[in-house]
Amino acid sequence: MIKNRLTIQELKDGVLASNKAILGRAISLVESQSEKDRTNALSLVNEVLPFSGNSFRMGITGAPGVGKSTFIDGFGDFLLSQGKKVAILAIDPSSKISGGSILGDKTRMEKLVGRKNVFIRPSPAGHELGGVAQSTLESILLCEAAGYDFIIVETVGVGQSETAAKEMTDMLLFLTIAGAGDDLQGIKRGIMEMIDLVVVNKSDQIDSQVLSKLIGNFNQALHLFPPREFRPAVEILNCSAINSIGFDQIWSFVIKYESKVKENGSFLNNRNSQALNWMRRSLLNMIQKHLQKNEMLKSNIEKFENLVTSKRLSPLDAAKQIFDLLNLG
Amino acid sequence: MIKNRLTIQELKDGVLASNKAILGRAISLVESQSEKDRTNALSLVNEVLPFSGNSFRMGITGAPGVGKSTFIDGFGDFLLSQGKKVAILAIDPSSKISGGSILGDKTRMEKLVGRKNVFIRPSPAGHELGGVAQSTLESILLCEAAGYDFIIVETVGVGQSETAAKEMTDMLLFLTIAGAGDDLQGIKRGIMEMIDLVVVNKSDQIDSQVLSKLIGNFNQALHLFPPREFRPAVEILNCSAINSIGFDQIWSFVIKYESKVKENGSFLNNRNSQALNWMRRSLLNMIQKHLQKNEMLKSNIEKFENLVTSKRLSPLDAAKQIFDLLNLG
Repeated sequence: MIKNRLTIQELKDGVLASNKAILGRAISLVESQSEKDRTNALSLVNEVLPFSGNSFRMGITGAPGVGKSTFIDGFGDFLLSQGKKVAILAIDPSSKISGGSILGDKTRMEKLVGRKNVFIRPSPAGHELGGVAQSTLESILLCEAAGYDFIIVETVGVGQSETAAKEMTDMLLFLTIAGAGDDLQGIKRGIMEMIDLVVVNKSDQIDSQVLSKLIGNFNQALHLFPPREFRPAVEILNCSAINSIGFDQIWSFVIKYESKVKENGSFLNNRNSQALNWMRRSLLNMIQKHLQKNEMLKSNIEKFENLVTSKRLSPLDAAKQIFDLLNLG
Repeated sequence: MIKNRLTIQELKDGVLASNKAILGRAISLVESQSEKDRTNALSLVNEVLPFSGNSFRMGITGAPGVGKSTFIDGFGDFLLSQGKKVAILAIDPSSKISGGSILGDKTRMEKLVGRKNVFIRPSPAGHELGGVAQSTLESILLCEAAGYDFIIVETVGVGQSETAAKEMTDMLLFLTIAGAGDDLQGIKRGIMEMIDLVVVNKSDQIDSQVLSKLIGNFNQALHLFPPREFRPAVEILNCSAINSIGFDQIWSFVIKYESKVKENGSFLNNRNSQALNWMRRSLLNMIQKHLQKNEMLKSNIEKFENLVTSKRLSPLDAAKQIFDLLNLG
């Protein structure tokens, strides 16, 4: 049993000892939005930071109904058999609306629940995407410090959640099925260029002609994008997650992908630029939040917005005048 | 002859009188990067702002070699025959490198050069995209105040220039040709979702089977994107710009497009949100520039970047500490 309130040192020790209960507590701390908890969360993450990073981070996205939970359950089980220690996190900004987080119903992960080397954490409910993404990033670092060397970040495929997943992982897997037709209408704009691997799930239930047309359409769509210099070409693989068919090929791709990006340095470059982007974005977010909170500026921004839309002030001059009000010195 | 230095009032009067020489001077002012000129430019733009906006703004993009200049020359001539007053501007952040701006060689616009109701302005050389885009936006407002009611914004199709064009126009036309193959490999990532109309140029030189395959491929690619609620569905039209074939169908599409977006209100909504986005982006740019200029902050940001990439400080904590240094109060 763990006492009610743990110190940062106790949380750090527990995380480094790979104590799941304490890891859960640590993640609750980084998920909290209270100002005091944020200060402690930043301290804790800094404490474990030197022990983080030793993992492969895979984002998994796809429309609802393609079987993401079943896939993660099966592929996670496969990863365990490869000796991996697997953490499964989620980015689900929609849980506020739908009421249930994607990973909330852990019973859907029958093969993984209760296993020693698995840590599953649903997305916190009731937060906006920015907050969810930020806490998922910090959760990744905590899980890595706890020794999890394969991190899966599931997204619900709504809004900008894939972009957020892409910005904190090493590889993005797009899970799909052959729908009523064999076209790609289900794919969201802007997703294609982020994908590193396409996996067609439930492929054993699809007519082989439909399947090859689907794959052909994907290949054609992928040709819309320039060749990838530092990462292996996108592949389109099949699987039947419920029957554990096809995981070995996906695993082969992951191994090939990981060794290529590590050899050519893009793995580290990508992680570094991701980290610096998070820093810059967070800084701009803080400045924007500061602007939004400041009553004087707030009323002024509204005033300037009205001046702009009523064509009494040009957008650029409005920006200049708001900037001057900021008095940054 | 115009005297060397004009007052803002003289510039304003000349612009409103549709004096091309003075319009040219006014645009030179908004293109200047000197701080004093920027102050005057903002004043001038505000002065003419109430007279701006009465135009249809069309962005035109496409890879080098598809015949953008010839197309604009021919289609501009067609617009004149429809009673339009046509201004042609450009966003060409590459002119710094290539040495020659896209519209710099006006001799390529044989039908338009010297015509009464045409104003052609090449993109300023030697500026970064942000500066070019900003001055193009201000140039649009000046041209509108001078009575030009059809504004064409040409982009060189390099970098983010299409995005910039999209953000200041009402409709984006993508000009293409059938290349060696009939596929879409030449299309840049992220462009497809911005396009309102595809025009296949030099279509009279293409085998009809190749042409219909190209159109089929475009239609399939367009299906990757969700249906458009407020704008007409994207169409794929043919033309032979050099032989002035196909302009009437393009014009029909423009009329249909303009009347739909004006009827359902999205024309004005789009312009307003464009203006507010310019305001917000400019404000953030000013803040970022301010941060970059500030020596104390500059050295600190570098220090923090090093701490982040060497995993001694988390990105979010680094952002927090830089924010605290800003002392925004």
